[in-house]
Amino acid sequence: MEKFFNPRSVVVVGASNSPFNLGATICNILQYLKFEGNLFAVNTRAEAVHGCPGYSSITEIGEPIELAIIITPSRVVPDFVRQCGEKGIKNIIIESAGFSEEGEEGSRLQEEVHTYAREHGIRFLGPNCLGVLDTRSRFCCFFGIIPGKYDDAFSNVGTISYVIQSGGVGALIMDSFQTDVTDVNKMVSIGNKEDVDEADLIDFFDRDPDTEVIGMYLESIKNGRKLLEAARKSQKPIMIFKVGRTSEGARAALSHTAGMANNDVIFENACRQAGIIRLKAISELYSLPKIFTSMPPLKGKRVAVFTNSGAFGGITADLLVDAGLSMARLNRETQEKLAKTGKLYNVANPVDLGPTIAKQTFIDIFDILLSSEEVDGLLPVPNVWQQVVIDAIMELEKMCRHYGKPAAIYIPNAADRIIQIRNANRISVFESPEEAVRALTVSYQHYRYSMKKGS
Amino acid sequence: MEKFFNPRSVVVVGASNSPFNLGATICNILQYLKFEGNLFAVNTRAEAVHGCPGYSSITEIGEPIELAIIITPSRVVPDFVRQCGEKGIKNIIIESAGFSEEGEEGSRLQEEVHTYAREHGIRFLGPNCLGVLDTRSRFCCFFGIIPGKYDDAFSNVGTISYVIQSGGVGALIMDSFQTDVTDVNKMVSIGNKEDVDEADLIDFFDRDPDTEVIGMYLESIKNGRKLLEAARKSQKPIMIFKVGRTSEGARAALSHTAGMANNDVIFENACRQAGIIRLKAISELYSLPKIFTSMPPLKGKRVAVFTNSGAFGGITADLLVDAGLSMARLNRETQEKLAKTGKLYNVANPVDLGPTIAKQTFIDIFDILLSSEEVDGLLPVPNVWQQVVIDAIMELEKMCRHYGKPAAIYIPNAADRIIQIRNANRISVFESPEEAVRALTVSYQHYRYSMKKGS
Repeated sequence: MEKFFNPRSVVVVGASNSPFNLGATICNILQYLKFEGNLFAVNTRAEAVHGCPGYSSITEIGEPIELAIIITPSRVVPDFVRQCGEKGIKNIIIESAGFSEEGEEGSRLQEEVHTYAREHGIRFLGPNCLGVLDTRSRFCCFFGIIPGKYDDAFSNVGTISYVIQSGGVGALIMDSFQTDVTDVNKMVSIGNKEDVDEADLIDFFDRDPDTEVIGMYLESIKNGRKLLEAARKSQKPIMIFKVGRTSEGARAALSHTAGMANNDVIFENACRQAGIIRLKAISELYSLPKIFTSMPPLKGKRVAVFTNSGAFGGITADLLVDAGLSMARLNRETQEKLAKTGKLYNVANPVDLGPTIAKQTFIDIFDILLSSEEVDGLLPVPNVWQQVVIDAIMELEKMCRHYGKPAAIYIPNAADRIIQIRNANRISVFESPEEAVRALTVSYQHYRYSMKKGS
Repeated sequence: MEKFFNPRSVVVVGASNSPFNLGATICNILQYLKFEGNLFAVNTRAEAVHGCPGYSSITEIGEPIELAIIITPSRVVPDFVRQCGEKGIKNIIIESAGFSEEGEEGSRLQEEVHTYAREHGIRFLGPNCLGVLDTRSRFCCFFGIIPGKYDDAFSNVGTISYVIQSGGVGALIMDSFQTDVTDVNKMVSIGNKEDVDEADLIDFFDRDPDTEVIGMYLESIKNGRKLLEAARKSQKPIMIFKVGRTSEGARAALSHTAGMANNDVIFENACRQAGIIRLKAISELYSLPKIFTSMPPLKGKRVAVFTNSGAFGGITADLLVDAGLSMARLNRETQEKLAKTGKLYNVANPVDLGPTIAKQTFIDIFDILLSSEEVDGLLPVPNVWQQVVIDAIMELEKMCRHYGKPAAIYIPNAADRIIQIRNANRISVFESPEEAVRALTVSYQHYRYSMKKGS
């Protein structure tokens, strides 16, 4: 599998200099990323593309090849897969569309490729996919990607690995990297997943030391039992958004990536039995992982809410209770300690600070709450009306690690301000109270499952 | 009531030149907004504040006064209310805190003010509130507001009127104006609402020709029956977010604005019986109103999804069904017309266009769908990968008005890009598929309630 992400030599089959040629965009991005291995193009005119030497067939290339990327019309794909076999290539990414998602003839071609690959020990991704992106090896073969647009992803190397069954959702997630501290490790687009599927990738990412969290967008489940087994073995949080909860959604997904989509019951079972975190919105794929990568787990249900803007105490209390968590009951000693930190409006939970401009008051309150026996985690809702508030919450991550308890911060300002504060300071901040509470909930869910499995 | 929003003369009681004086910020913002009437300050030293002549009591002022704004320590408020009575002032905004939200003595003071006001035919807002903002009359007496920060609100005069029982939520809504096309008419902060309450303001805004939608944030319901009656009489959509669904949330709200908060059952009943739209998230207060102000109502359940990014067809289909709406079944004739517009991936609903750069193709598809008998509304999910996509969706509002059917647009790009596109082009765009579906749902809910009431 490693060869899909960090190959020493690559051929892009179908890359040419024709206008709008998609293969050429792959040669282009690899050159832009300064791919260090050998890079070749295959096209009918054997022409060089973006500086990659061109050949009219794979077998003509003199050098050894580790990975073939095929992006040709679907009817010629089986031929090129055979050429890969003759050349000894064991890893293929088939990005071409026109397979099982487009009817019978496509299904036949897909089956033909599969049979040949199985017989020759070839693993392949796709067909009908975008390929892979790896921020550590700086390898990316997404077709159509604009050089420079995603520089941020490569400069903020992270530990979240994605499996995405849709180019559009992949692009949305890539876009979100630019406005969040969700930093990516690897991303795989699996398309019709005729060979490599979500379960294979859970296995792979579970062993991958650079992956802390696995995020997935799926339009269908290929093999429920295999997914269940892979997820059960995994030590890492697995978050999945699956389309097709309803028959209408399943029908729509079917027209897109051709899975047997209408098996939501199987999937729901797998989630329950294997501790998979089922996501409720596509945005959770990029908003929630940071609770795992930046914070210790929530080990109990009791959450302390801290705010300098009274209304949000009630709003978050409702959300916490709805989510099955609880408002921590602060004992008298804790409340007395809190009262000494400054002029607080409320020292019971929610702790309401009112307007202060003393950074130390924030720090003192965070310290009292995090060190308190009655508190398992924090939900700070600091209105950022002065720089001092940012200075204070920037200390929080370190304090959370010290006490082994998480904080899910929500800033009650408009979205653009939240994004600006988050990016400028690289602090883990959520965009709504719903998102912050959801982050605590999934953190607790994963922790509980891990404990149950461990015992 | 009109005098609260457009007074010809105002006194700010408690405005002085002391450091951090909050009354002074009110004189300052009114001067900044070029308030054209007479403006006076009252303080112990009878000093002028930001150019407003100063007096040591209200009765000393020689000119007639229409509105008094009181922002002094709570213990002296009853005295100043009495001075208002003597001066013949019939409208008072009491912004001071320290009343029923702070215990017995505060409750007594609040009662004292109420009794006097009732006996003298005075209406008052608050105590413990921010006051009002009116973009048409350019009047704003929110304390602490920074001149210039909300210029956008005044230059984009709108038709949404808000009633807000929290300064923090008010500030969040004000911030959101800057990133959305939600344009405001009036905003009232009601605090402890001892006199003027949410029901009074529903009555007022229902008669106000500049109000199309009423949005409310409430921490308590003062009088369930009165609210029910006001809402029933109203012709306009009323959207309310209420804190205190749970006992924990109610307890937190109680410490903030001192209502009898734990009456969620009464409220839930009022919503059902009076067609009030109960909001699920605070963000819906600023994200949803635009479906009412920019689009015709959804008059049936059948929604057509249009996308150029396949995955979102399935995602939105699931959401529509979850929300009780349905995917429109396009008949053969409609599908044939769609097929003729270009190379579509799918002509059944969801209509999947794939990548095109022809604006006319978008327009043709919108026209076919909106004019189709089988379709009550649109959910367009256009990935904005080229300017042409923006050009196309900018035509949509006009087309929707022509056919009397709404479109709730979601752009599947990252939040900052959505905000940028929305603001630069002033198009009504939602930030998530959940939000777009929710907008269609509340549009349909209000339409159905109006029809039922009308018949």
